Amino acid sequence: MNRRDFLTRGALVGAAGASAATLAAPAIASGIIEWRMVHSWPKGLPGVGVGAERLARRIEKMSGGRMRINVFAAGELVPALRCMDAVMDGTAEMGHDASFYHVGKHPALAIFFAVPFGMVADEQAAWLLHGGGQALWDELSDRFGIISLPAGQTAAQTFGWFRNPIESPEDFRGLRIRMPGLGGEMVQKLGASAVLLAGGEIFSALQSGAIDAGEFIGPVNDLPMGFHQVARYAYGPGVQEPGGAVQLMLNKGRFQELPDDLQEIIRAACHAGHEDMKVEYDLHSGKTMEVLRLEHGVQFRRLSRETLEALGAAAGEVVRESYDSGDALTRRIWDSYLASRENTKRWLRFNEQAFLNARVLDFAFPAAF
Amino acid sequence: MNRRDFLTRGALVGAAGASAATLAAPAIASGIIEWRMVHSWPKGLPGVGVGAERLARRIEKMSGGRMRINVFAAGELVPALRCMDAVMDGTAEMGHDASFYHVGKHPALAIFFAVPFGMVADEQAAWLLHGGGQALWDELSDRFGIISLPAGQTAAQTFGWFRNPIESPEDFRGLRIRMPGLGGEMVQKLGASAVLLAGGEIFSALQSGAIDAGEFIGPVNDLPMGFHQVARYAYGPGVQEPGGAVQLMLNKGRFQELPDDLQEIIRAACHAGHEDMKVEYDLHSGKTMEVLRLEHGVQFRRLSRETLEALGAAAGEVVRESYDSGDALTRRIWDSYLASRENTKRWLRFNEQAFLNARVLDFAFPAAF
Repeated sequence: MNRRDFLTRGALVGAAGASAATLAAPAIASGIIEWRMVHSWPKGLPGVGVGAERLARRIEKMSGGRMRINVFAAGELVPALRCMDAVMDGTAEMGHDASFYHVGKHPALAIFFAVPFGMVADEQAAWLLHGGGQALWDELSDRFGIISLPAGQTAAQTFGWFRNPIESPEDFRGLRIRMPGLGGEMVQKLGASAVLLAGGEIFSALQSGAIDAGEFIGPVNDLPMGFHQVARYAYGPGVQEPGGAVQLMLNKGRFQELPDDLQEIIRAACHAGHEDMKVEYDLHSGKTMEVLRLEHGVQFRRLSRETLEALGAAAGEVVRESYDSGDALTRRIWDSYLASRENTKRWLRFNEQAFLNARVLDFAFPAAF
Repeated sequence: MNRRDFLTRGALVGAAGASAATLAAPAIASGIIEWRMVHSWPKGLPGVGVGAERLARRIEKMSGGRMRINVFAAGELVPALRCMDAVMDGTAEMGHDASFYHVGKHPALAIFFAVPFGMVADEQAAWLLHGGGQALWDELSDRFGIISLPAGQTAAQTFGWFRNPIESPEDFRGLRIRMPGLGGEMVQKLGASAVLLAGGEIFSALQSGAIDAGEFIGPVNDLPMGFHQVARYAYGPGVQEPGGAVQLMLNKGRFQELPDDLQEIIRAACHAGHEDMKVEYDLHSGKTMEVLRLEHGVQFRRLSRETLEALGAAAGEVVRESYDSGDALTRRIWDSYLASRENTKRWLRFNEQAFLNARVLDFAFPAAF
């Protein structure tokens, strides 16, 4: 965005902010329903930021011009991480972010974004769409006057960018690691400190030595952040966030005022957006990994088995504590989550995962081509 | 479906057949666009059949009642496996099936459903949506006056139901196996015969000994077929169809007559349907596996490493032959497919797949609960 765009945009933001304060019903000009979407990403950020824009455009297009959605990036209408408040109070009708940003409102909100050693993307969708997860999410969201739907997906994230190699669980002791949410609680069990920083602050904190390691999303977003310039080792797999279900929050009252077809259009657009973002990350992450490895000398390393076992045990403790300290709804959410995970895990292990493992040896194509 | 329903339905089918023959443009009564969808599945078949119905209802709902889609199961308007002809000649505007049924029209159509040792579901979506796959599919479909979109997904299928165990590649020699498409060509390289049978004929062929093994889809569909009564061993992983992208074919002329919003609605509904069906199969397959194992004594077995290597090499030969014997477009499709597969494979292997493997040991939850 150049300066001129920014100024123009700023004026629009101001106007939208004013109308938000004065209008109780959706702004309707010449029959067009005009809504605001706030999100928590830097403007145009590949993956999550682009996904928010794409979601808005898809809804508009399906509405045949009856709906217009003005999209505001982090800081344009409300600060990053304040999207839930904005949707609750009607400053915006829609908010696009990660539910775990709002654990201060209810700890169980973390479960719907990512659980360490929990579910991968397809399993999250299976649980939400067919395993009872959405009904539980609706019950929790209803306390805040919102509806939350899965609308994007980061796929399994990079475990972290480390300045020094991690070879055993002991190597975590004393490290300061930027890792939010339940994943942060997991590494704390191994003696690390989980540091909370906005995405844009990670690079300079790594550079100055204020942190020893950090994770943001994955190669697609990590490369432009420049992490490879200040940390040489990229570790996987991303056990702290094996799937990351990006949400669209809707102001429930406003949503229910919409005609049925527009409600269904928004639901389907979110649904499509969940898969669309996931597979785009998979494809471009694979490409970007090669750029990081070949052009920038990044070492992609696997966490050792010993480290994975320690992290897995720590994740188990984190889940147990969340369960024991949670209210009745939190426990029902965990029960449902863990039961659905068992079912999908069983089939994936026997089939898709076993196939991926068989393919690692890559018998077929290199032999042929 | 009881007999009364069947007779009523039969009458409707006849009427629709007559109108198909006499109307050149979409039937429009009182402003409603009335379309026909034919599919190749038994009526109400869980997964694929239900997915076709759900897709039609979702489009109708998003259209706000402007569009009505009459769905015809296999045999109701046209025979199973004849959906492509029906869409090409306008008997139906939409057809829901698997592209490899139509390899007689062009061999490359097989690639868009499933490739042995090829891509899993998310990789297929990555290729089609972001890796150039859809443009190539459009180019191929255009030769037949249709548009094909991914609209459902079987997920990795059962490799096969075997009457006797398969322990090495030699055990395939002389077996008669129901396995269609490129997967069938793969097992023929190991000395088996690939037998072509409709899904509904597999049970009796296994029972009579006319075939020694067969595959249909996965546990969700295999259980009601009763395969466990006549074959005790269910093998995985489904290397013959590691993902199965179910398609919606559209008559291109009719589709282009639709207003832009309805076109976008159909595209988004297909997109959502691809993920929806995939994850529902994952969840219910996991549950059904346990029913088959515990209540029916089915032995779920993994193909041995030696067998996987032999099948992988055979799959490589099948792809090579398809490449060498194909026209220029076929070779461009393979080049694009294999390049996209390399990129997604790299990231999945480092991350999601490595996570699933770490989770197999299941450090976390059983220790905690």
